[in-house]
Amino acid sequence: MKLEKGLIHVYTGDGKGKSTAALGQAFRSCGRGLNALVLQFFKPASQESGEHALAGPEGRGLGRIEFRRGQSRHPFFDKKADREAIKTEVLDLLEDVAQEWEDWDLVVLDEVNNVLRDKFIDWTDFEAWLNRKPATVELICTGRGAPQALIDRADYVSEVKKIKHPMDQGIAARKGVEY
Amino acid sequence: MKLEKGLIHVYTGDGKGKSTAALGQAFRSCGRGLNALVLQFFKPASQESGEHALAGPEGRGLGRIEFRRGQSRHPFFDKKADREAIKTEVLDLLEDVAQEWEDWDLVVLDEVNNVLRDKFIDWTDFEAWLNRKPATVELICTGRGAPQALIDRADYVSEVKKIKHPMDQGIAARKGVEY
Repeated sequence: MKLEKGLIHVYTGDGKGKSTAALGQAFRSCGRGLNALVLQFFKPASQESGEHALAGPEGRGLGRIEFRRGQSRHPFFDKKADREAIKTEVLDLLEDVAQEWEDWDLVVLDEVNNVLRDKFIDWTDFEAWLNRKPATVELICTGRGAPQALIDRADYVSEVKKIKHPMDQGIAARKGVEY
Repeated sequence: MKLEKGLIHVYTGDGKGKSTAALGQAFRSCGRGLNALVLQFFKPASQESGEHALAGPEGRGLGRIEFRRGQSRHPFFDKKADREAIKTEVLDLLEDVAQEWEDWDLVVLDEVNNVLRDKFIDWTDFEAWLNRKPATVELICTGRGAPQALIDRADYVSEVKKIKHPMDQGIAARKGVEY
């Protein structure tokens, strides 16, 4: 697969998430059959990292990665979406995780910031769920509009600020890059 | 492998790179033998994405991912680093890529913004290299202090702003998360 148009991305600033954003992009693109080269400066071989272990020949002790998804689209994109059904779905998905905390070392709640912002779960319910998280589990919450209560509770907080976005030039999401 | 202490990350804001930062983190952690669960809200199965193709059972048409690294550390961390050797290394690494542009669909230049900021390559030389990039190749440049000339040239620019960082609480980089 070749992209029709390859763009240039820049991830800059003093927050965490620049290199991992690039890595995540590389792995996503890989999943579409694109060939990705990651050229790293100032990270000599003596500083081996998890991504090398995954991608390199030595990648033998790999953990597993599992994706799970809610069935609903956000009401902003799906006018027929049922708010109550979404609330139930969110609670169910989170409860399933809480039942199997011990199986996971890292849990990503992708777009959960929007879930909280738009009150598909109350902060108190989410906080109760958070309180059940074992100390050894790393939790990552993404999405716009993270509520202040979550920011207060978090250890790592990065604000990813849009400086330029191709959508503003009328370039639509491209298979292999944006999804 | 279990983390000694699992932190909470938040990637928020209106720029690109929040979900991919989380994904990159998940894959990196995977490479360390951690088990990662990615729970996605508002991304139903009808919106299949490259990361699912990579991680799921249907991940058959995978592209390849290759990591290459310069041997030098940044002079900020290695007082004995030879600036001229770094300049040569940077030029060589970039020239190798230019010789095989057709092999790649996506190229990450990890930390290249620092390389440019600290003049290990002149902008004019880098720009000449950029001008050789085929239109179909997606290029990702990471690192602090991206120069304005690169920002002007880029399509996607996100500023990842630190709101909170565990290092500020004295928590050192942890295998499986930060590297």
